[in-house]
Formats: sequence, C-alpha cells, structure tokens
Amino acid sequence: MNTLSSKILQNAVNEISRLPGIGKRTALRLALSILKYSNDEMDDFVKAFVSLKNDIYFCKLCHNISDTEICPICQDSRRDKSIVCVVQDIRDIIAIENTRQYRGVYHVLGGIISPMDGVGPDDLNFKSLFERIQNMDIQEVVLALPTTIEGDTTNYYIYKNMESSNVHVSIIARGIAVGDELEYADEVTLGRSLINRVDFEQLSVK
Amino acid sequence: MNTLSSKILQNAVNEISRLPGIGKRTALRLALSILKYSNDEMDDFVKAFVSLKNDIYFCKLCHNISDTEICPICQDSRRDKSIVCVVQDIRDIIAIENTRQYRGVYHVLGGIISPMDGVGPDDLNFKSLFERIQNMDIQEVVLALPTTIEGDTTNYYIYKNMESSNVHVSIIARGIAVGDELEYADEVTLGRSLINRVDFEQLSVK
Repeated sequence: MNTLSSKILQNAVNEISRLPGIGKRTALRLALSILKYSNDEMDDFVKAFVSLKNDIYFCKLCHNISDTEICPICQDSRRDKSIVCVVQDIRDIIAIENTRQYRGVYHVLGGIISPMDGVGPDDLNFKSLFERIQNMDIQEVVLALPTTIEGDTTNYYIYKNMESSNVHVSIIARGIAVGDELEYADEVTLGRSLINRVDFEQLSVK
Repeated sequence: MNTLSSKILQNAVNEISRLPGIGKRTALRLALSILKYSNDEMDDFVKAFVSLKNDIYFCKLCHNISDTEICPICQDSRRDKSIVCVVQDIRDIIAIENTRQYRGVYHVLGGIISPMDGVGPDDLNFKSLFERIQNMDIQEVVLALPTTIEGDTTNYYIYKNMESSNVHVSIIARGIAVGDELEYADEVTLGRSLINRVDFEQLSVK
C-alpha cells in the first residue's frame, strides 16, 4: 500500500480510511469508485457532506438528529410525552422506531459512562435529561442502554439521580432472543431470564 | 431504516450507500461519524474528493492513475520498457508493485471482456495497447488478468490480436498458492498445477 502512484489518490484513501471500520484496502476501492463519478454525481456527493455539517440540528429536547430545532418525534402530537426512553445513540432510536412498539419520546445521551474510555457523566447529555424530568410532566423513564458493565453503570447513575423524583424508572427486558434456542444462549442471559421470569398472565405478547 | 428523523442525514446515507459494498447500516454509521467532524476536518474530507475529480490524470501511456500526464512508473528510467504487464485494474498494479518482483511497465485495460455485463473490446483500453506493441520496442507482454472465464477470453483476444507481431506473450503462473495445503485446493487449480508442472531445475525460486 506504499506504492500508490498518485498523492491525490493517496490523500483520498487516507481520508476515507479515517472512518470507523474502513481499512486501507476498502478505502482504495471506494476512492477508485468515487473517481469514476461524473461532475454531477461528485457535486451531489460532496454537497451531502457539506449539508450534513452545516444544515443539521440536534433536537433541543432529546438531542436526536433533525432538520429542524425540535425533531419530528418531539413535535409529533400523537406521541406520549410522559414516557422518555433513554438511549445511547441516535441509531438506537432508529432501531426502536423500526419495532413500532414504542409511542413515547426519547433522550439521546450521546454515549455511556465509561471511565476506561475517559467518558464521565459531564461528557453526556444528563443535565438536560434531569431538567426534563424535573420541569416537564414525565411519568416514566425507560432505560434502553447496552447490556454491558458501562450500560449498567449508566443505568444506576440515572436511577440514583432520579430517586428524589416520583418518576417511575423501567428497563428494557433482557432475556432469550425471540427465535433463539435455549441451548445456544449464554449462561448469564439464560440465568437472568430465569431470575426475571414474568407471570404468564401478565405477558403482553403471547 | 425508513424512519430517519432527518432528510439531510438520509441524503448523506443514500450517497454513501451508493458506494460498492456499503450497505444502508454501514452508511448510517459512517454518516454519523462524519457528522462529528470539525469544520477543518470536513474541509479536508470534501477537498480530497473534489481534488480526486479535478486534479487526477490517467497516464497517457498505461492508463494508470497519476498526478502527472505520464505516471511515475512509465517515467522511471530504471524500469524495463520492453516488458508490458496487462492488468484489469489500477489495484492490480499496486498488488504487483507490492511483490517487488516486477521491473517492467504496465497497461491498465480498465476491465475485462464480459458479454454478460455488456463489456466488449471497444469499452476497454485495447487500441492503445496494440498501438504501444506496434510502435514501441516491446519484447514481451505479460498477461496478469483474473483467472476466470472472462479473464481467459480477454487473454485469448489479446493473444489473437498479437499473432502478427513478433512479441512474446506470457501469462502469470496459476497453481497452488504458497503456504496452501494441497488437500484444500480446488480440483481445477490442482489439476492445472499438475498439467503446467515446471522442471525443478528451471524453478527460479527454490
């Protein structure tokens, strides 16, 4: 990879390979593909990125990505504003929206507490979350963070900071994935799914 | 994936997912990562692509990518101009250069003959290849195309069009990859490696 005959190409490859999960080889493939773009195609391609930088908002309420100051979900009068689902990332909103099982609103933390990566509470959108809980009529906070130690730490941090409020805190169910065989589930998941077993009568989807 | 809360983000995702081998999910991950760029980073990123479109040359001799009208390889006085290695793509030049086993020059076809994909001889850089063979002092043409039916067709097309010339045509060796176990090689490759067995005395790398 040290023998590219063009510094311009090399520069483009370097820029592309800075992106997460893109290696030098893939970056070269992509650069050569972009090289074949017509002037119009290149124009559209470049404009898409410039617009991403200049024209996008982060929702003032939930920090979701948006073309307007308040995102479409927070603006939607049919959504239940009394339930706030706390997620790590904008991608989690998309994943939850795709299930069509949730009609509340969201709060994007922008990460989770991870001392190993130098991410503390001050680096995340907690202040605006607790302000929402204090000032707005919220009944329930649903924690939908990753099922990792960092996720658990963050869940606990939120729970502790909400103790004084009268807001109900819930957490998404952990257990055996739908369609999975029990024998292939890891022990921790299977163990938790037994401890947190649900009364069959209360099961909402039978 | 039909629920992105921002049309601008959606547009960027669409542009990125037009690239080969990039799905919608990866495109979203990349777009969200680009979104975090500083103004300077975004400037460098966009400039790299604009420069790719505006400032790059394809070498007048071999069609390799270059920052100058004639590429560094064709300009290099230490390279043997009497040997031309025919490759499908610029990436193949990089792969061969990385071996440090070849000191001749190249000719990039820009593809191979593939009627199924609508690629005929007129779509590829054959004219300039045969002109080079006719007008310049070339002793040997090394065919280094993919070992597929399309590659074989293209090899044969070149060979047929060169019959009237006195230029020697060679083809890169096909056989068991270095370090591979025989039992895992496919039958065609193993069969060919037996048919095309080389006299041990003539083996250049023992």
